[in-house]
Amino acid sequence: MGFWKSLFSPSDTAVAPQRPTTQPVGRVEPESRVVFSTERDLDLYELEELCDAVGWSRRPLRKVRKAIQHSFLVVSMWEQRGTKRRMIGFARATSDHAFNATIWDVVVHPDYQSRGLGKALMRYTLKKLRSEDISNITLFADPHVVDFYRRLGFILDPEGIKGMFWYPD
Amino acid sequence: MGFWKSLFSPSDTAVAPQRPTTQPVGRVEPESRVVFSTERDLDLYELEELCDAVGWSRRPLRKVRKAIQHSFLVVSMWEQRGTKRRMIGFARATSDHAFNATIWDVVVHPDYQSRGLGKALMRYTLKKLRSEDISNITLFADPHVVDFYRRLGFILDPEGIKGMFWYPD
Repeated sequence: MGFWKSLFSPSDTAVAPQRPTTQPVGRVEPESRVVFSTERDLDLYELEELCDAVGWSRRPLRKVRKAIQHSFLVVSMWEQRGTKRRMIGFARATSDHAFNATIWDVVVHPDYQSRGLGKALMRYTLKKLRSEDISNITLFADPHVVDFYRRLGFILDPEGIKGMFWYPD
Repeated sequence: MGFWKSLFSPSDTAVAPQRPTTQPVGRVEPESRVVFSTERDLDLYELEELCDAVGWSRRPLRKVRKAIQHSFLVVSMWEQRGTKRRMIGFARATSDHAFNATIWDVVVHPDYQSRGLGKALMRYTLKKLRSEDISNITLFADPHVVDFYRRLGFILDPEGIKGMFWYPD
């Protein structure tokens, strides 16, 4: 398994082995499964491709590398088929290693959306942060994913606490 | 000056030299001034006293030390009078060192509030983050300080982006 970690207990049906419907009849392909990694030594071009697929604007790879290096947690999600793998999801978190963490750049490839993989990615990320004894886990959610995070247990503006942003002029 | 940094240009009247009204008549005391530091080697008991003064619940010093150590930026604000100094404000930020920073634990001692020092503390913090080329500066504001941050240029829920929190059960 190397640094791979299979995340799902056999009872977890949310992320059953994937068998694409386009698979040619009569050809035997190894069954695919979804695995997670906290490895930071990622192929940044592969990550960029993933971010392109959801329409994010490109960022300088030099800065992406720095951000990954200085994130507290980096999670990538992969479809593994035999020895081949494809990056299908990503998330990372900044943190003070003690009290607070903030999750950024949560992405699932469009081809793999709507089958519970985003939820699985977030659950893995939360589990990892909790195992480091981080109690205050935060994020900034785009309007269309607020309900997604709410279903995962995130609370919107708890006790009236508001997310605020400052941008340079 | 050592690691001290005097922050205000002579034209900045927001933080004029402080002369407490309780000063005994006839006794010559050195004029006080407000200085900022990004030094991390702080007296944690002094910091705890400052946080006590605004009614924050106490946190284990071991974790506070770890959080300071792993913050991207730590800013303390001091009243300096001759060779004596007193911690009167504090703020820190987590960051990925590239894109995002999140400001936490902003505090000004009640005796020093309402004279522009919170604004000065935040401006210093923003200036430091900007000098590191961080473009997305965020925070989570309690309801009663939302307007304070708005006046500093922070935007509430920009484009509908919402702050969300996840707490352990």
